[in-house]
Amino acid sequence: MSKNRGVVYIGPGKVEVQDIADPKFEAPNGKKIDHAVILKVLSTNICGSDQHMVRGRTTAPAGLVLGHEITGEVIEKGADVEMLDIGDIVSVPFNVACGRCRCCREQDTGVCLTVNPSRAGGAYGYVDMGGWVGGQARYVMVPYADFNLLKFPDRDRAREKIRDLTMLSDILPTGFHAAVNAKVGVGSTVYVAGAGPVGLAAAASAQILGAAVVMVGDFNAERLAHAAKHGFVPIDLSKSDRLGEMIAEVIGTDEVDSAIDAVGFEARGHSGGEQPATVLNQMMQIARPAGHIGIPGLYVTEDPGAVDDAAKHGSLSIRFGLGWAKAQSLHTGQTPTLRYNRQLMQAIWHDRLPIADIVNAKIIPLDQAVAGYATFDKGAAVKYVLDPHGDLLAA
Amino acid sequence: MSKNRGVVYIGPGKVEVQDIADPKFEAPNGKKIDHAVILKVLSTNICGSDQHMVRGRTTAPAGLVLGHEITGEVIEKGADVEMLDIGDIVSVPFNVACGRCRCCREQDTGVCLTVNPSRAGGAYGYVDMGGWVGGQARYVMVPYADFNLLKFPDRDRAREKIRDLTMLSDILPTGFHAAVNAKVGVGSTVYVAGAGPVGLAAAASAQILGAAVVMVGDFNAERLAHAAKHGFVPIDLSKSDRLGEMIAEVIGTDEVDSAIDAVGFEARGHSGGEQPATVLNQMMQIARPAGHIGIPGLYVTEDPGAVDDAAKHGSLSIRFGLGWAKAQSLHTGQTPTLRYNRQLMQAIWHDRLPIADIVNAKIIPLDQAVAGYATFDKGAAVKYVLDPHGDLLAA
Amino acid sequence: MSKNRGVVYIGPGKVEVQDIADPKFEAPNGKKIDHAVILKVLSTNICGSDQHMVRGRTTAPAGLVLGHEITGEVIEKGADVEMLDIGDIVSVPFNVACGRCRCCREQDTGVCLTVNPSRAGGAYGYVDMGGWVGGQARYVMVPYADFNLLKFPDRDRAREKIRDLTMLSDILPTGFHAAVNAKVGVGSTVYVAGAGPVGLAAAASAQILGAAVVMVGDFNAERLAHAAKHGFVPIDLSKSDRLGEMIAEVIGTDEVDSAIDAVGFEARGHSGGEQPATVLNQMMQIARPAGHIGIPGLYVTEDPGAVDDAAKHGSLSIRFGLGWAKAQSLHTGQTPTLRYNRQLMQAIWHDRLPIADIVNAKIIPLDQAVAGYATFDKGAAVKYVLDPHGDLLAA
Amino acid sequence: MSKNRGVVYIGPGKVEVQDIADPKFEAPNGKKIDHAVILKVLSTNICGSDQHMVRGRTTAPAGLVLGHEITGEVIEKGADVEMLDIGDIVSVPFNVACGRCRCCREQDTGVCLTVNPSRAGGAYGYVDMGGWVGGQARYVMVPYADFNLLKFPDRDRAREKIRDLTMLSDILPTGFHAAVNAKVGVGSTVYVAGAGPVGLAAAASAQILGAAVVMVGDFNAERLAHAAKHGFVPIDLSKSDRLGEMIAEVIGTDEVDSAIDAVGFEARGHSGGEQPATVLNQMMQIARPAGHIGIPGLYVTEDPGAVDDAAKHGSLSIRFGLGWAKAQSLHTGQTPTLRYNRQLMQAIWHDRLPIADIVNAKIIPLDQAVAGYATFDKGAAVKYVLDPHGDLLAA
Repeated sequence: MSKNRGVVYIGPGKVEVQDIADPKFEAPNGKKIDHAVILKVLSTNICGSDQHMVRGRTTAPAGLVLGHEITGEVIEKGADVEMLDIGDIVSVPFNVACGRCRCCREQDTGVCLTVNPSRAGGAYGYVDMGGWVGGQARYVMVPYADFNLLKFPDRDRAREKIRDLTMLSDILPTGFHAAVNAKVGVGSTVYVAGAGPVGLAAAASAQILGAAVVMVGDFNAERLAHAAKHGFVPIDLSKSDRLGEMIAEVIGTDEVDSAIDAVGFEARGHSGGEQPATVLNQMMQIARPAGHIGIPGLYVTEDPGAVDDAAKHGSLSIRFGLGWAKAQSLHTGQTPTLRYNRQLMQAIWHDRLPIADIVNAKIIPLDQAVAGYATFDKGAAVKYVLDPHGDLLAA
Repeated sequence: MSKNRGVVYIGPGKVEVQDIADPKFEAPNGKKIDHAVILKVLSTNICGSDQHMVRGRTTAPAGLVLGHEITGEVIEKGADVEMLDIGDIVSVPFNVACGRCRCCREQDTGVCLTVNPSRAGGAYGYVDMGGWVGGQARYVMVPYADFNLLKFPDRDRAREKIRDLTMLSDILPTGFHAAVNAKVGVGSTVYVAGAGPVGLAAAASAQILGAAVVMVGDFNAERLAHAAKHGFVPIDLSKSDRLGEMIAEVIGTDEVDSAIDAVGFEARGHSGGEQPATVLNQMMQIARPAGHIGIPGLYVTEDPGAVDDAAKHGSLSIRFGLGWAKAQSLHTGQTPTLRYNRQLMQAIWHDRLPIADIVNAKIIPLDQAVAGYATFDKGAAVKYVLDPHGDLLAA
Repeated sequence: MSKNRGVVYIGPGKVEVQDIADPKFEAPNGKKIDHAVILKVLSTNICGSDQHMVRGRTTAPAGLVLGHEITGEVIEKGADVEMLDIGDIVSVPFNVACGRCRCCREQDTGVCLTVNPSRAGGAYGYVDMGGWVGGQARYVMVPYADFNLLKFPDRDRAREKIRDLTMLSDILPTGFHAAVNAKVGVGSTVYVAGAGPVGLAAAASAQILGAAVVMVGDFNAERLAHAAKHGFVPIDLSKSDRLGEMIAEVIGTDEVDSAIDAVGFEARGHSGGEQPATVLNQMMQIARPAGHIGIPGLYVTEDPGAVDDAAKHGSLSIRFGLGWAKAQSLHTGQTPTLRYNRQLMQAIWHDRLPIADIVNAKIIPLDQAVAGYATFDKGAAVKYVLDPHGDLLAA
Repeated sequence: MSKNRGVVYIGPGKVEVQDIADPKFEAPNGKKIDHAVILKVLSTNICGSDQHMVRGRTTAPAGLVLGHEITGEVIEKGADVEMLDIGDIVSVPFNVACGRCRCCREQDTGVCLTVNPSRAGGAYGYVDMGGWVGGQARYVMVPYADFNLLKFPDRDRAREKIRDLTMLSDILPTGFHAAVNAKVGVGSTVYVAGAGPVGLAAAASAQILGAAVVMVGDFNAERLAHAAKHGFVPIDLSKSDRLGEMIAEVIGTDEVDSAIDAVGFEARGHSGGEQPATVLNQMMQIARPAGHIGIPGLYVTEDPGAVDDAAKHGSLSIRFGLGWAKAQSLHTGQTPTLRYNRQLMQAIWHDRLPIADIVNAKIIPLDQAVAGYATFDKGAAVKYVLDPHGDLLAA
């Protein structure tokens, strides 16, 4: 192990790459653990949800090591690790999960009941998610390694496809979960709100699930242009606030089978300014009767930086009767990555799912993470992949 | 056919039993139809959703013949009716459905696409639901009869069990749909908000689905006492506003597997006064992580009588992040009765589901309907069944 | 209506194109029906299951008009037909279904309970399937038309895509049902036994469902070569009887996630000669533990031409413990076309599913049907589409 | 720990209770393991599948310690056990499962890929199931304890309900899995072949799943009489070989919604003598079109004691076309206990499922196990529960 370095949250608007402590076989509560491995991180991505913290929209403490999208190589393992060997290349689901509680047994690893004393669900490098050290770093510790890690079948092939495989840790399963929740199937018509990486991953997921038409809506021209290049129909929200009409121009009817909100509470309205419920309300409007709405976009219980008092305490003004009259279902929450990553890996492995190109993956050195955060925050049509050891850029 | 009579909406707070027109083989748009039958109504129930109209909370026009919970005997049939005979006793799903559109083919009969020109979904005797004449009457016409009607296997047994079977037209499937949506299964812990007839039907459904514990919450002492008599655990909301704590006293934890909102937009808060989102917010609070919430309680897009401007246009202040953080799903809408009524009939037929006692069915003559509406509106722990021909009371 | 002509079964090994009676608004039992339409047939395909009759392996009576894969244009309609207009172009599911019985209501249209007095399930032009006249003809009658028919959204586009859309009547939904039953999903590894049209349709279905690898096994070199051209991995059964090993060469393990038997009871073994259970046994061998097996290949209860006495009465020697030890499920039966055809149509409509090329559709005049039957019976890698009016070949 | 004693297989027809080795923290391959616990066994049941070994129908080696239905108290735990404490009372699923492989992650713990080098799936005290020492003993070792064990919420209540809770280790989940596979739901009509303990557990499961009518068929008058006492309709197979007719007498039609084969390969025909496929064929006969068949009854790949050569190699003469014509599905295999035991525990805990009475549980001392095996083998209508420490009989 060389000296560890990682991306550290300093305060609103500010991150730095610093030397950090080496990972240990120890849980956040100090307990020594034998079920963990230490990974040399091969790739680790910047996520839109990291931005919520960096923008100061959360209570993340200064000094937090960021990063929950991790792919790495096993370099040390605890005595209880039976199914992994030194040298294995693995994908780390962003959810920390014990594999032993009721939720994990039922594949709801996104709300594991034991890895976070303050609520259901844990994650690496994230505020209020259990204190597990983040992985935008050279090295990271992964607990319950046999359960959590997805081992790639072959080292060489894994390195070859690393730009794609790195998306298995979060963004691709998150988009896929949204599409599955929205009941996308063969022949579905789909609308995805938001052309950022999660929106594009949802669109890619809808496509491999067999959707007939996948529309992606955004205000950002660069992101829309990128979406269009990959076979999605761009819906330019800056042109009109009549979403149904724009959809009808594409598919002949103003409602879709499946609607996906890949925006969340930082939504802004057509008139500008944050309107936290605007996307939710649109989704109920444009989803068909008996339709399903997948909601990977984050909604929060407390939002000190919100536009009004109600929203500060997470209360949004939602036209719930819209959805009720149409007998819709709304599906929320963080993705249980483990439920999907093996099968998505198979699809990547056999060249069925070019997710890196679809989300426009761009590899940069770990030490350029600060610039990456800044550019991504401005809405660049790109997904940054950090290369902590320079192996990827060298290859 | 003797002279037709039925319950007619006169204006806010007022219904009357009047002579009404005899049913014809004709759709609301005037088209002659051969796929219909005329029923002699054997029983027809007063529904909580009728009360929304009668209280003046909707735009129901004066003169509307009410009633969508109908059981009857076929006395005339059109030329295209192949599977029913004169004399058959049948249950009428409250949803009018064509059996031919995409939604009906997929068992989403609650949002049939063809029977209502103004929106998806039709019903008898209900505002904005397609203009089909209601069945709180001596006679009623049912279109697409082969598709819509559930024929009872035996006339004598049907008459014997009519107090139970009459619940198949709406309330029992509605409660069952809620329980199914909330993913109630064997061993589930369940909380039902509202001890009115729909809440009790949801509780009964949870029970036959194998729930381990079914709690029912209300402010109404009489309704709670009735619920307790049937094996449900009453939760007296007038005692405390800490619902989680009251639940924990019963099951040892403050969250349930499945939560059901059988109240809807006319919810009132602990402090009194309407608080249309209070039950929804509670459901997210007390449902477990990865849990499902069934919402048979009605939410509307327009509510002229609401407490504030937002609610008048159907916008409710919902703490959506509560549910999101727990990865919950919310399921709304009117029940597709046809998806469930056959199997529920089987359960009644073989003495597995004493729904009449559970909802406290009380048979009264059609001519006492006005008094029935009034008593029910005051919160009586009873479900009124009208007996248009006096056959039931005679038996 | 010009004079009707159709393909008629004469006796074992013999079919003829003859003048036949014009279709009438009349059920096989003589009852006049108003829910039917008369179609001008635009395309109608020869099916492998027609061959069972033509080879004399069934009790089909001489004079039977063949054909159950029908696409047409509505030229007359009964009084009860409400959702279709003269001139609509429609796909006819091969299953005749009433849309009113329990099975139809639950989307099990392949086993409709009312259209066939001798067993569950009806079809056009098929022995023991209710006596409905076949559609390898210029004109055909379709009962319960509103329920049964899938209307194409646009006449011009329908004609443009007719080679693909003609596969919606049977073969594509049949392949899709098999893949769905075998639980094919994103990332699945799939083996399809049989590279005939149904096998290829199953392979195409697996692909659009997101399968990572689709292998197709056969003895027929021409069919395998055709399969390979469309992205499926050919498994040449003439090279070895060690199927597991051949699979392992492709995917690194000798078991697949999903196995599909698209061969049925006329299977032959590696040593030559019919071995009716050989494919079933192989499927249990090569499907993974907890895997599912889809069985679109036909198995019969009586087979007078079988190789041994037991098989003559439908009893096959199956190593059932093979599957039991691996906790597998086996899914049989005719496809409920209506459950899938709308969504598959959408996929074709939006250029996601080039099924005509995948099954190698070849359009021939109705009058060349006899040659088509003969060539197909010899194992040609082709799917014959009959063009009764010469419209398709003219275009 | 007092001296260990257990039930040992000696040879065909012979078991003995002997002193045996104390359990160690060691896997069958000799590896030391920290994820295990040692249990003091509180109750351990004799299973019908033990009888296959004892009758000499398998290759079980002499000296095998039997027993896979185990409930116990944690008396020692390895360093990696985090969620269990000394003194916890727990149910042991009969399947040994690692909780880390693909199958375990997907809740298919019955076919765990890592605990048995010779095939998928492991169990305690069973031939070819991985060499894990059986638990019809005073003490037993359970590996991967956090994952495998179901902890009861309260020690006192657990002891009170131990007769019921002891059925969670195998028989109740096995019956439940069968009913779930057979798609039993509210209002279903159900036929269970076999009135032994698994058949009764399947019947009890069907009942709590809401079945309208549950019939149980057998030749054994004592077992039928017992079934009748618990609300199941007995079908006396000794009276007639026309099963459909006997069913029609009960429900008015000769087919049921759901059929369960709780007999397996040792089935005997109406004429006497083993007919290994007779129950399977009957199930296809009496299940409705589109119905599902659950098959908890064991079928094997090798059966040296079989009636004919084909059956010796596991080949049974099955009328597969029967099921195919009716579009049925067949579901096989050992139950993944962990998928169901928590919810079934909840049902028992809250007095919803009196499984001990239904299967006629009888507690006997460990030292009377030999007599228990013998009596059970003769078809006694009883389920024997061994009490290794005399605690249950003392209470």
